[in-house]
Amino acid sequence: MSTPTSPGKPGLSVSPLAVALPAFGRIAGVRLAVGRAGFYKHERPDVLLMAFDDGAMAAGVFTRHGVGSAPVDWCQSAIQQNGGAVRALVCNAGCANSFTGPPGAEAARRTAAAAAHALSAAPEEVMLASTGVIGVLLDAAKIEAVLPEIAARLSPDGWAEASEAIMTTDTFPKGAVAEATIDGHTVRIAGIAKGSGMIAPNMATMLAFVATDAAISSLALQDMLGVAITDTFNAVTVDGDRSTNDTCLVIATGKAGHAPALEATDPRLSGFKVALRDVLMSLAQQLVRDGEGATKFVRVDVTGAASDASARKIARTICESPLVKTAIAGEDANWGRLVMAVGRADEPIRREAIAIHFGPLCAAKDGMVAPGYDEAAMSAYMKGQELEISVDVGVGAGRASMWTCDLTKRYVEINGDYRS
Amino acid sequence: MSTPTSPGKPGLSVSPLAVALPAFGRIAGVRLAVGRAGFYKHERPDVLLMAFDDGAMAAGVFTRHGVGSAPVDWCQSAIQQNGGAVRALVCNAGCANSFTGPPGAEAARRTAAAAAHALSAAPEEVMLASTGVIGVLLDAAKIEAVLPEIAARLSPDGWAEASEAIMTTDTFPKGAVAEATIDGHTVRIAGIAKGSGMIAPNMATMLAFVATDAAISSLALQDMLGVAITDTFNAVTVDGDRSTNDTCLVIATGKAGHAPALEATDPRLSGFKVALRDVLMSLAQQLVRDGEGATKFVRVDVTGAASDASARKIARTICESPLVKTAIAGEDANWGRLVMAVGRADEPIRREAIAIHFGPLCAAKDGMVAPGYDEAAMSAYMKGQELEISVDVGVGAGRASMWTCDLTKRYVEINGDYRS
Repeated sequence: MSTPTSPGKPGLSVSPLAVALPAFGRIAGVRLAVGRAGFYKHERPDVLLMAFDDGAMAAGVFTRHGVGSAPVDWCQSAIQQNGGAVRALVCNAGCANSFTGPPGAEAARRTAAAAAHALSAAPEEVMLASTGVIGVLLDAAKIEAVLPEIAARLSPDGWAEASEAIMTTDTFPKGAVAEATIDGHTVRIAGIAKGSGMIAPNMATMLAFVATDAAISSLALQDMLGVAITDTFNAVTVDGDRSTNDTCLVIATGKAGHAPALEATDPRLSGFKVALRDVLMSLAQQLVRDGEGATKFVRVDVTGAASDASARKIARTICESPLVKTAIAGEDANWGRLVMAVGRADEPIRREAIAIHFGPLCAAKDGMVAPGYDEAAMSAYMKGQELEISVDVGVGAGRASMWTCDLTKRYVEINGDYRS
Repeated sequence: MSTPTSPGKPGLSVSPLAVALPAFGRIAGVRLAVGRAGFYKHERPDVLLMAFDDGAMAAGVFTRHGVGSAPVDWCQSAIQQNGGAVRALVCNAGCANSFTGPPGAEAARRTAAAAAHALSAAPEEVMLASTGVIGVLLDAAKIEAVLPEIAARLSPDGWAEASEAIMTTDTFPKGAVAEATIDGHTVRIAGIAKGSGMIAPNMATMLAFVATDAAISSLALQDMLGVAITDTFNAVTVDGDRSTNDTCLVIATGKAGHAPALEATDPRLSGFKVALRDVLMSLAQQLVRDGEGATKFVRVDVTGAASDASARKIARTICESPLVKTAIAGEDANWGRLVMAVGRADEPIRREAIAIHFGPLCAAKDGMVAPGYDEAAMSAYMKGQELEISVDVGVGAGRASMWTCDLTKRYVEINGDYRS
C-alpha cells in the first residue's frame, strides 16, 4: 500500500497524525464554491468563494504581525466600516499578498469589487484572505477572470471542497462541526482551517473560517471569539513563527429562527459558546496534527504558576524549545530539557518544588529526579503518537494547556525548499 | 580523505565552519592540567583544573536561568563572599549538576574543598563549572579521586589540552588570545570556551574561561565584562535555548608588572577593553561556528530601529526563527521569511520603509520587492558559507548585530539522540 499524499501539494505525504474531515452538512444562509485561478503550476483549486445571505454578521481575529498583509488590512477596515455586515469571503492560496505595498492594497480592492459585483453586494461586505509566499503581488486579474464562473456554482454543500481549496503545505484538509441550542432552536456551526508550518501561528499562514446559522450580532460574536481564541488558536504552536496573514473569521447568518442575541453575556448563548470553542479547538489541534514534519501530537499542561498568563508563557517556552521538540522526535524522555525550558521562560518558579510528569509517569518532583524514576517505562511512553507532559512549577494556582508537535528532520526538509 | 572527527565525542564530524586553535602561549600566574574522572564511557579527559597564583581576581557572568545549577550557585556566592579573590577553577564535562537539589549543592561543596586542599587555598577561592546532562547528580568522589594527581601536573602550557577537556558535543576546541598595553607593559589575554547546542546560550552549556596577566580589580573586571558581554556572548544564538549552567569567568592574575587598575573607567584600560572584547567575540563566534549541525555562519545586522535594544530584539527574532534558519540551510534567499520575522518581533517598524539586503544584493526596499530583484544572483550568494543579512526597519537610529547559524537536519539528528 502506498502512503497517501496531500490533495494540496503533489507528492507530500499525509501527516501520520491526520484526522478525517467531518460530515459538514449545511449551514443555512451559506453557499460555497471553489475554482482555479492558476496561482499554482499544477492543477488544483486555489480560490474559494463563500457567499452569505443578506443579514449575515461577521467577527474576526487577525494577526498582530507588524507587517501584516493587504487582505488583513482590508478585512479590519471593512468590518469597522460596516459594523460587521458580510455577504462574501474570497480566499486564495498560492500568494499571501503581504509586503506588496500600495499595489497589493489595490489588488485586494479589485478582488473585493469583483466578488461584490458577482453577488450584488457592496465591496465592504466582502472579506478577503490570502495565503502563500510573502512579497509576491496578488494578480487580481486571475481572480476577476474566474469569480463569475465560481459564483455560478455556489452550493450549500461545498464545505469539503472549500477545505481543500485553501490548503498550501497542509497534508490534509481540516474541518469541524458542532451543534448547540438557543431558545429551543438547534443551531449548527461548521468551520474549516488551513495551516501547517508557521503556526504560532505560522508562515504557511493560519486561516480559519467558521459559520453558524445562529442569529448573533457582530459585537457579541467578536466578544465570544476573543475569549475562545486564547485557549484554542492561541494555544497551539508548531514553530513559533507567526504569519503576516493569520485570520479567523466567524460568520453568523441568523437563519436558525431564534431571536437575535445582541450581547455575548446573553444567557441563551452558554451552549453556543461551548460549541464554538469546540469547533475552534478542533481546528486548532488539527493545525498541530499537520505541523510540518510532525510525528507526535503533544499536550503540555503547566500548573502551579503565578497566574494563567505566566503558565501560558512557560507552556509556550516548552512547546517552542528546539531541544525539547527534537528530544520528543527522538522519543527521548529528556526531562532535563523541560527543566531548561521552564527556567528560561523568565517567569516565577520555585525550583525546589518543580514536578514533571510524562503521562502518568513521574520524572521529577521536589526539584530533583523522582525516587524510583523508571527510564524503561519513560522510553516506552515516549513511543506513543500522542503524548502528555505536565509541569508543576510550585508557585501558585495559575494553569494553562498548550498543544504542539515534535521537530523532525522532515520539518527542515520541507522548509529548506519551500519555494523550489 | 576521511572527515575529521571531534576530539570530544567519537564519530562526531568536525563542523565545516571550524577554525583552528590559536597558539596560546602562557599567562603569567596561570597553570592548567586535565584528567579523567570517568564521566564518559569512552576515554577522554573530562576534568580541568586551573590554578591561579595568589592575588588573582575574578569576575563572572552567569546564566539568568530560573533553575540554574549547583556550580553557578557556588560561584556567585563565592565571588560575593571573598570579593573576587580566586585560586582555582574546577570544570567537569559529562554532568551539569543542575536540578539536583541539596545533594547537588553538597557535591559542589566537596569538589571545591578537594581543589582547595590540593592547592592550599580556601574553598571560597575555588570556582566551579559543570556541563553535561541536566538532572544528574555530580559524583564528587570521582573528582576527589583524581584532583591530587591532576594538581601534580599543573603547567603554564596546558591551555590547548584544557580547551579539549571541557568539550561536550563540541566538534572542535575553541580558544582565542589577544594583547594590549597598560602603562607601557604588554598584557596578554587567553580564553577557552565550549558550547555548540543550547546556545542562546544552549543546553550543551556555554562555558568560557578567560585569563589575563593584567592587574585589575574584581570590580573593574566585572564592569568591563558586563559591557563586553552584550555584543559578544549575548549576541550569538544557535537555537534560542539557554542553559542552566552558562558561565563566563575572567581572571586577572596581576603579574604583568603595572600598577593595578581599580576602576573600569581607568583610562589606561582602553586598549585592554578592546582586547578583552576581541577575545570574547572570537570565542562567541566560535560557538556559532560549532552550532549543532551548522553549515552556514550568518551575521544579521539590523539598522533603523527605535533603539539599540529594539534592534537587538529584531535581530534575535530573525536569528531564532526556524523558518529563516531552514531557508538558509536550503540556500534559499527567502526574504519573505525575514519580513515575517521582523514583523513578529513586536518592535516599532515602518513597513513601507523596510529594506533587506543579502550581502551587497538588495532584496527589498520601500516595503516591497526591490526593483531589478535578481533571483539568480541571490541564489548564488546563498551558496556561500559565510552570509550577511541586513535589515533596515526605517524608524530610527538603533542598530545591532547578531550571529547565528542555519537549522539543518543534522541539528535534529544530534538532539534527537543526545542521551543515547
